[in-house]
Amino acid sequence: MSSNGSNGSSATYEKLTKKIRNYQTLGACGALLSWDEQTLMPSKGAEFRSEQLSMIAGMVHESSTSAEIGDMLSELRSSELTQKSDSPEAVNIREVSREYNKSKKLSREFVEEMTLVTSQGQHAWKEAREKKDFSIFLPYLEKVIALKIKQAETYGYEKDRYDALIDDYEPGATFESIGKVFADFRDELAPFFKAIQDSGNQPKSKIIERDFPVDAQEKFASECAKAIGFDFSAGRLDVTTHPFCSGIGPGDTRITTRYNPNHFPDAFFGTLHEAGHGIYEQGLNTKYFGLPIGQAVSLGIHESQSRMWENLVGRSKPFWKRFYGDAQKAFPGALKDVALDDFYWAVNDVRSSFIRVEADEVTYNLHIILRFEMERAMINEEISAADVPAVWNEKFTSFFGITPPDDSMGCMQDVHWSAGLMGYFPTYALGNLYAAQFFAKAMEDLPNMYANFEKGEFGELKSWLNENIHSHGQRYPAEKLVEVVTGQKLSHKAEMKYLRDKYGPLYGI
Amino acid sequence: MSSNGSNGSSATYEKLTKKIRNYQTLGACGALLSWDEQTLMPSKGAEFRSEQLSMIAGMVHESSTSAEIGDMLSELRSSELTQKSDSPEAVNIREVSREYNKSKKLSREFVEEMTLVTSQGQHAWKEAREKKDFSIFLPYLEKVIALKIKQAETYGYEKDRYDALIDDYEPGATFESIGKVFADFRDELAPFFKAIQDSGNQPKSKIIERDFPVDAQEKFASECAKAIGFDFSAGRLDVTTHPFCSGIGPGDTRITTRYNPNHFPDAFFGTLHEAGHGIYEQGLNTKYFGLPIGQAVSLGIHESQSRMWENLVGRSKPFWKRFYGDAQKAFPGALKDVALDDFYWAVNDVRSSFIRVEADEVTYNLHIILRFEMERAMINEEISAADVPAVWNEKFTSFFGITPPDDSMGCMQDVHWSAGLMGYFPTYALGNLYAAQFFAKAMEDLPNMYANFEKGEFGELKSWLNENIHSHGQRYPAEKLVEVVTGQKLSHKAEMKYLRDKYGPLYGI
Repeated sequence: MSSNGSNGSSATYEKLTKKIRNYQTLGACGALLSWDEQTLMPSKGAEFRSEQLSMIAGMVHESSTSAEIGDMLSELRSSELTQKSDSPEAVNIREVSREYNKSKKLSREFVEEMTLVTSQGQHAWKEAREKKDFSIFLPYLEKVIALKIKQAETYGYEKDRYDALIDDYEPGATFESIGKVFADFRDELAPFFKAIQDSGNQPKSKIIERDFPVDAQEKFASECAKAIGFDFSAGRLDVTTHPFCSGIGPGDTRITTRYNPNHFPDAFFGTLHEAGHGIYEQGLNTKYFGLPIGQAVSLGIHESQSRMWENLVGRSKPFWKRFYGDAQKAFPGALKDVALDDFYWAVNDVRSSFIRVEADEVTYNLHIILRFEMERAMINEEISAADVPAVWNEKFTSFFGITPPDDSMGCMQDVHWSAGLMGYFPTYALGNLYAAQFFAKAMEDLPNMYANFEKGEFGELKSWLNENIHSHGQRYPAEKLVEVVTGQKLSHKAEMKYLRDKYGPLYGI
Repeated sequence: MSSNGSNGSSATYEKLTKKIRNYQTLGACGALLSWDEQTLMPSKGAEFRSEQLSMIAGMVHESSTSAEIGDMLSELRSSELTQKSDSPEAVNIREVSREYNKSKKLSREFVEEMTLVTSQGQHAWKEAREKKDFSIFLPYLEKVIALKIKQAETYGYEKDRYDALIDDYEPGATFESIGKVFADFRDELAPFFKAIQDSGNQPKSKIIERDFPVDAQEKFASECAKAIGFDFSAGRLDVTTHPFCSGIGPGDTRITTRYNPNHFPDAFFGTLHEAGHGIYEQGLNTKYFGLPIGQAVSLGIHESQSRMWENLVGRSKPFWKRFYGDAQKAFPGALKDVALDDFYWAVNDVRSSFIRVEADEVTYNLHIILRFEMERAMINEEISAADVPAVWNEKFTSFFGITPPDDSMGCMQDVHWSAGLMGYFPTYALGNLYAAQFFAKAMEDLPNMYANFEKGEFGELKSWLNENIHSHGQRYPAEKLVEVVTGQKLSHKAEMKYLRDKYGPLYGI
């Protein structure tokens, strides 16, 4: 019986993983179609492309929520394959079951309504943002909030309704668990930022607003992305309006950026950021493509990889000790008379600003905490859609000391709410916290890391990440992974230490 | 009963077309994946891409040969929807049935074996071609011939085994029907070519081997492709090793080319050629996407469109009267001291050459007739794979008066046989014949066509093609279409007249 049972579960497991690989391979076709839509597709192809993407999404949904998969999962959950809880088999069964159970809860009608409302919502948001007129967006935001509340109630939750939504992006995280960390973080971050402002010190920020020809930017950013370890024989870099990274499939991870000829940081750090996401995707175990053990853990952990390469590496002094000479050669017009220290400070300029995606390392987290608090209030019906502009402006003024001149520079700057991505924002700040914790641990394990950066060698950090994070896939939930890797629970301490160590000396505080 | 029957067939027809549109939409995902594979895909993505393409091909095959579709077709073939034989409904039922019946004959095992052998065959061919060693390719060519014979026998045929294969590319055409036309064509073409050679006249052909910077080529070729009517808001031009046109779907037709910085014609006429294919794809009725009435008729008719824009338009004097000034501006280093007449003759240089894809308008057809005769002999077991090099060289010498120095310049120059594409070659020469017939008729209908070319206006020819050819989709088989449009059966006469009118004066014969 035990032997039969064992053979039976092995056969079922094999059948299940084959089915999953099949629908994930189909999903990967959708990923390429979507990448193409955002980079190269001719405009008249848009309507048919939507039809293709919707067809593939429907096929993947149908296949991944089939009763057949449900039956196989039921059988496997009670099999001996789940005994060793961090074995690939146990992890795959656990995580596929988790996804399956969530997906099954949403009716096809609900999914279709959400797709429709968020599609309309994004169009309305775009128009409202262009016209700086919140009233155009308001009815859609109301609908989105109502649907997200419905979704949270359908999923269910233990303590806070917002938890059900966070779980879509950061499985296992709750408002309480991360809210506490964010509150502690903010308590230290706010006075630190104030001290920076009060210091009166400022870099020569106009340096990075000189003329940076796009061709030279593309070449230089590609070279640096390659240097830190993004494998261009298994990936590409292209141009889009909204930069992203897409892991199309084994051996094919694509990143995008956008160039501003009069602002160096946008494309450069954007490329390193997406390359960081790409290095994670390229570091996943291709043998397990499509299965949880071969997939990224969470958006927070994903963001930890992008923010680490963008900021902890790419905005570090050791990095620029190696690459500043190359930058001067690439942009002689802009940089030949600029000293390394001035350039380094200019790309680490801390100041109040309205736009999240342009914010520095210090204030970025405050932008996120603001959104996190507002989302939770919206989902718990403590504020209504109509309250959003006033609440935003009030909070923003208290956080940053400046008030957005209009809603397009304020509560309408991000696409997320129009697209129904509530619960997504906190993963950005989580990414910063995880990144600082991982980086501190890597520094302990690799004492020559900074010295090697100065030589343009990033391989040991990449290998460390491959081994400690990427290769695990979804073996551990994010909160467990950070403990396994660093020996510490999620906390703001490593991030605050990093910020103090870096910006204290820069601003003389 | 009649009313019920009618409603019943309408419902069945609607269900059928929906099914077809579904699997064609999936097939279009494969088209994008394949385009991407040949243009942009990073090298390490190759293995997974094959898996994706093979999965999609399998899904489309399964869906398009399902018993459900067969049952619907049976019902519809005897319904009143087929009464008006050139109605969209009747055409779709007729052509989908034809495809269905052919596809059903091939077993899955056969399709898999063919895929495997031709995949291996192409690798072996590539190696053999590089090493100029036919023996490496021989065993694969033997296998391919055996499989193609098996395929022809499985399909069945009335007179000639080769007919069964031609039918895959040029439905309805037979060895007898096109063989007779080709024989008549060759009887006039060979002495005409000899007269050109004997004239002793030659253009200054080195003109077009000067320095033509790739960026300028790309810009100039794109402008001309746009000028003749290729819609870049519904298409793209990219770079590949082997140029092609892919109709991805409604609003999205992509063409490719390759640049030789020291040979102007390759990319330029290659781009116009692919743009010609593209204009056909863009001219199909998108309302009927995926259905025969919205699809190209045959490879021969497709090639008539590409060859027309490439040669009858793009290599014409009126075309260059308009664009030569632009060319001189685009390539001042190469062309500023070159007279229009010298340039015009240089791009219309007729001479014996070994490589088909580089051949001029006159000799190109001889290259095709040679392959057509050899394919027929192979499939009828009149010559074996081992005989191919000797037979090729003997025929080639008799056609062109020169003998290939090695098999890579001879029987191994084209990928087709390694890929199992036997029966494909004749469509290239058919394309030339159809093009000349259509063009002569267009000239009758549009007496100012050439005068308009001189003004850079190509819209009336494009509209004429849209109306007379593209909009019909597969309403008529190719041989019927040419009669409907021109009032004449397929013949070599228009092509010979065109060649004589153009090259007689050039070569003073």
